[in-house]
Amino acid sequence: MIKVGIIGGTGYTGVELLRLLVVHPGVELSLITSRSEAGRRVSELFPSLRGFVELEFSSPDDAALKACDLVFAATPNGVAMHYARGLLDAGVRFIDLAADFRIKDRITWEHWYGMEHSCPELLDQAVYGLPEMNRRQILDAQLIANPGCYPTAIQLGFLPVLVQDAVDPATLIADAKSGASGAGRGAAVANLFCEVGDSMKAYGVAGHRHQPEVCQGLDQVATEKVGLTFVPHLAPMIRGIHATLYSRVKPQGMGQDFQALFEKYYQGEPFVDVLPAGSHPETRSVRGSNTCRIAVHQPEGGDTLVVLSVIDNLVKGAAGQAVQNMNIMYGLDETTGLHLPPLLP
Amino acid sequence: MIKVGIIGGTGYTGVELLRLLVVHPGVELSLITSRSEAGRRVSELFPSLRGFVELEFSSPDDAALKACDLVFAATPNGVAMHYARGLLDAGVRFIDLAADFRIKDRITWEHWYGMEHSCPELLDQAVYGLPEMNRRQILDAQLIANPGCYPTAIQLGFLPVLVQDAVDPATLIADAKSGASGAGRGAAVANLFCEVGDSMKAYGVAGHRHQPEVCQGLDQVATEKVGLTFVPHLAPMIRGIHATLYSRVKPQGMGQDFQALFEKYYQGEPFVDVLPAGSHPETRSVRGSNTCRIAVHQPEGGDTLVVLSVIDNLVKGAAGQAVQNMNIMYGLDETTGLHLPPLLP
Amino acid sequence: MIKVGIIGGTGYTGVELLRLLVVHPGVELSLITSRSEAGRRVSELFPSLRGFVELEFSSPDDAALKACDLVFAATPNGVAMHYARGLLDAGVRFIDLAADFRIKDRITWEHWYGMEHSCPELLDQAVYGLPEMNRRQILDAQLIANPGCYPTAIQLGFLPVLVQDAVDPATLIADAKSGASGAGRGAAVANLFCEVGDSMKAYGVAGHRHQPEVCQGLDQVATEKVGLTFVPHLAPMIRGIHATLYSRVKPQGMGQDFQALFEKYYQGEPFVDVLPAGSHPETRSVRGSNTCRIAVHQPEGGDTLVVLSVIDNLVKGAAGQAVQNMNIMYGLDETTGLHLPPLLP
Amino acid sequence: MIKVGIIGGTGYTGVELLRLLVVHPGVELSLITSRSEAGRRVSELFPSLRGFVELEFSSPDDAALKACDLVFAATPNGVAMHYARGLLDAGVRFIDLAADFRIKDRITWEHWYGMEHSCPELLDQAVYGLPEMNRRQILDAQLIANPGCYPTAIQLGFLPVLVQDAVDPATLIADAKSGASGAGRGAAVANLFCEVGDSMKAYGVAGHRHQPEVCQGLDQVATEKVGLTFVPHLAPMIRGIHATLYSRVKPQGMGQDFQALFEKYYQGEPFVDVLPAGSHPETRSVRGSNTCRIAVHQPEGGDTLVVLSVIDNLVKGAAGQAVQNMNIMYGLDETTGLHLPPLLP
Repeated sequence: MIKVGIIGGTGYTGVELLRLLVVHPGVELSLITSRSEAGRRVSELFPSLRGFVELEFSSPDDAALKACDLVFAATPNGVAMHYARGLLDAGVRFIDLAADFRIKDRITWEHWYGMEHSCPELLDQAVYGLPEMNRRQILDAQLIANPGCYPTAIQLGFLPVLVQDAVDPATLIADAKSGASGAGRGAAVANLFCEVGDSMKAYGVAGHRHQPEVCQGLDQVATEKVGLTFVPHLAPMIRGIHATLYSRVKPQGMGQDFQALFEKYYQGEPFVDVLPAGSHPETRSVRGSNTCRIAVHQPEGGDTLVVLSVIDNLVKGAAGQAVQNMNIMYGLDETTGLHLPPLLP
Repeated sequence: MIKVGIIGGTGYTGVELLRLLVVHPGVELSLITSRSEAGRRVSELFPSLRGFVELEFSSPDDAALKACDLVFAATPNGVAMHYARGLLDAGVRFIDLAADFRIKDRITWEHWYGMEHSCPELLDQAVYGLPEMNRRQILDAQLIANPGCYPTAIQLGFLPVLVQDAVDPATLIADAKSGASGAGRGAAVANLFCEVGDSMKAYGVAGHRHQPEVCQGLDQVATEKVGLTFVPHLAPMIRGIHATLYSRVKPQGMGQDFQALFEKYYQGEPFVDVLPAGSHPETRSVRGSNTCRIAVHQPEGGDTLVVLSVIDNLVKGAAGQAVQNMNIMYGLDETTGLHLPPLLP
Repeated sequence: MIKVGIIGGTGYTGVELLRLLVVHPGVELSLITSRSEAGRRVSELFPSLRGFVELEFSSPDDAALKACDLVFAATPNGVAMHYARGLLDAGVRFIDLAADFRIKDRITWEHWYGMEHSCPELLDQAVYGLPEMNRRQILDAQLIANPGCYPTAIQLGFLPVLVQDAVDPATLIADAKSGASGAGRGAAVANLFCEVGDSMKAYGVAGHRHQPEVCQGLDQVATEKVGLTFVPHLAPMIRGIHATLYSRVKPQGMGQDFQALFEKYYQGEPFVDVLPAGSHPETRSVRGSNTCRIAVHQPEGGDTLVVLSVIDNLVKGAAGQAVQNMNIMYGLDETTGLHLPPLLP
Repeated sequence: MIKVGIIGGTGYTGVELLRLLVVHPGVELSLITSRSEAGRRVSELFPSLRGFVELEFSSPDDAALKACDLVFAATPNGVAMHYARGLLDAGVRFIDLAADFRIKDRITWEHWYGMEHSCPELLDQAVYGLPEMNRRQILDAQLIANPGCYPTAIQLGFLPVLVQDAVDPATLIADAKSGASGAGRGAAVANLFCEVGDSMKAYGVAGHRHQPEVCQGLDQVATEKVGLTFVPHLAPMIRGIHATLYSRVKPQGMGQDFQALFEKYYQGEPFVDVLPAGSHPETRSVRGSNTCRIAVHQPEGGDTLVVLSVIDNLVKGAAGQAVQNMNIMYGLDETTGLHLPPLLP
């Protein structure tokens, strides 16, 4: 049994991580911290977990955390970096579900996250936890930077064609739609039911933190520098990301069977499902599950490739991917605790 | 392994039953029938089940059904009754998720369901599959009438106080709010997104089929004839029933500790959760799970008792309860395959 | 032209009041105050009003307010009472959309609102602005207490039968469902899209401020002391209240034609619409409009009367009713500026 | 007063047209036809219109229609073309809210709409009713092809930059998200609340009827042949289209002030609102109104231009634009009956 601790379990990512871990056969949940809720039973804050978890939230305590095998941080950005050095030195493996270790370049990170990084020397050591890209490094990782939700959906959709050099990396467009849980559980007028409901809007068109994260990942496989226009949108739904990805097919790519290319690329991947030709994945088809479903279209056989990629932002885009990383790190079957049919309708 | 067949798996109850059965460790799913979708892969109609079920829908075939140990009917009302005799005679156990065997009195049934019953002689034999009431009879049942969604939420909320004779059975009120999945997956203008969304309405105030079903159940435990005013409402949500139950405390019931009464009554029940005093259960706290959560209030210590009872109409109100019944019938732990944390948010 | 000022226009009640006033032919909007948004254009905060209002929010300024003919307060509870004396002394008429003057009994008010009342001497003078009850007093009123949203829907549903002494006033039940805009535009976790969406819950079962307000109103017409059990619910919709009202028909009321009773009682009322027998009003049928739609049912001819009453909580339950009161106060046709078809779908 | 008839008023476009016309000061509503609902009161089908319209639906009757000044068709595609010749010959002006006269090229129309056109000789005569493009021709038109909802949002967003030759017309991308009312009021499983709710999906990626309509319009102003990739999405909301438009800035366009370009282009347009630089329009900011709000972004000053364009699909995308066309045709102020603040929240 892996002895697990969670730092910061009061947000949506935290409660989702709990949902997955409390029925994971290889995990013993040891502690879960929250400064604001210390002393309160987890199941009081989240009655959905009554009968599944008896723990109380505790104040962050170094000794208790260091007694764990593995610690997850489900905190706001900028918190995990203050725990990382201590935990790693104590031999505790660490998965950060926030963004502290996602960007390798410190200057870029500090620009987008608006703060100084407290342990930039760990940025190189951190493994970007997208198993479909970095499975081998994850196996031995001590420190995992769990990918962002948009970056997961977008990278999985672009990877196959960039690896094959079939599209122009310089003119990528990602038009992504996210459910409101992506904005977190913080009290903010913009996330009220009456602000989000029955409406759509784009946001962050001038620039969004997930853009450099995607570019960093895709640059590793692309033949040329990646140029990405990323426009996120807020949709009136709770969970789900629908990324609609546009790229220009290179002359040498015309005539290629993109359906076959995607199917071959993701063959054997337990959590990427390439749908039959002509499909349109719905976000609800992955609700509550760790699967990314992808469909590929080349409208009228032209030179614009359209890839549709959907995930549950809280699962494959956060907590589920973190558990997948844990499974890999501990040599478990990668699907352990994650073989859950989506909830539909 | 229980060899299971499903008649009629294209509705919401059917796909929910599939979601539960495909990960149930004691079940081998043998066939699933649909006249309209015969020959089509189940996972084509429900992409959420890709990777979980390889079956195609098949035309209803007597021989194949009779080769099963257990058959579930997830059909519209009036279909299961035509299969029951044949299956039972062949030694196949049968759980009807529709209403064909819920009402013991043939005349009442025919009045509310507007058709002749094809096998009224089975009505007596059928066991009403509410485990919290009839667990022992379910154990040996060949034919189970799986309760309706509203009746499940309402009966579980009224049972303890009627058994204790603490409230007046003649003046019960059940004001119930249901998500739209309760209306099924049939094409109907009234169930369109733009008709249901961002609105509330009552329906069937003049009379609803679930009223006699509830009265039949409660009459078994009440000291006097039950009188129930039942007003169902359609709420703009997908899953969930919230039953708000009003009753008049009898003089001998005044002063009683209703919180303790409920906690004691449901002690040990795996799927009824009595919340702490002062709670207000949310339907989402049981989304995707087989649990019924109940809270008890006596506003200002007066003689009106208010019980709040929530379930997921597709799980405890349909498919999950059917699986619970199956577990009991086959001597499995009652929670087998049903120990699933709700999906929240 | 009535020169109008608004105190506190940044909440949902405020923006709704603006929506109605900017196209009202008899109104000149003079100023709108907000401490937090002073100096910002109203249409910047609410882009829906671009082209309709050029004003900026201003800091509350006594002189400017006193230069108005009429001031509306769309503030949180406990603010309007600090303006009332000054405005009235300056000859300015005042409509409070919050609760400061709704309850005549100071002790009761202070109990439910948890603060000391700053001008209890005005409580008597304030007219409760439910035109269907107090039209004549409204005409000459200097100070209007605009009713709460729940109390509007509930009182309009109970009034006819209490006036006729047809039901028992001591055992009323109001099971009410409200959209989330009723909770206001404040930043609170409980009102987030992901907390409210796809779920239902009751709240305040132990006691809610609107209960004494309803009782105070109904006591004026009932033959005996009113006893009311009031259970409010939060529904996953933006606007709308659906009140489901239960009462026991008195022996002398049995046999009465309740449909005719309601139709007669509300004959000529511009904003109460009694639906044909057998109807089930939807909240969306009044979305954006000042109408209250009512249907009356007597299930199976029994002694429980069920009245369904729907309003838009922001219009008839708040801003629209305030405008209706203004129209009456200034001798305008009562429907001026309010003759708006609901938005459906 | 313009004597108006409506053919086919039972869909969402029809009821929206009614909402606008019943309060239009220049219109006398003469008849509204529906084969399926003939003899039923309009306000029985749509209780939101109680008190606003006393008409019954009538069977389509040539004489009655020919007695009108103006007839609107709010029918499915392929119906209006059978009325057009007769009405025009009788001197009745005709606005088709469906697609029968939108495409000038008969072959193209028949390809996309899958039927033979019954009066192709009228295609040339029909004026495409986008006032911002064709105001002068609308003035004298006898036959108006009211634009599609997507084409309205998309063309208004691309027009200014194509007219100025600032972007490459060959590589346009329109990623559009629509509320479910765009799919109409027909009974279809795909449009059920439980299918659409809490989910997003793309559809018609291989080809959509609105693509050639947009290209036809933009080709009139572009310097080169327009190439458009159009991906529509279904969003879990009732009303609203959010079009996110991508184009490549031409070398000569770099350095241009696109904000100023848009503001100048739409200066004086009553129903196009160019938002301040940096804005992100929400669909709810136009809910119930005839306004199109547009924002322009050039992320990081690169060569990808991003235009955000939102409309209410039932108003500016259908019924409101039809009324705007009527106003122009009859020399009324273009905003008559359309000066309505959006409903927010």
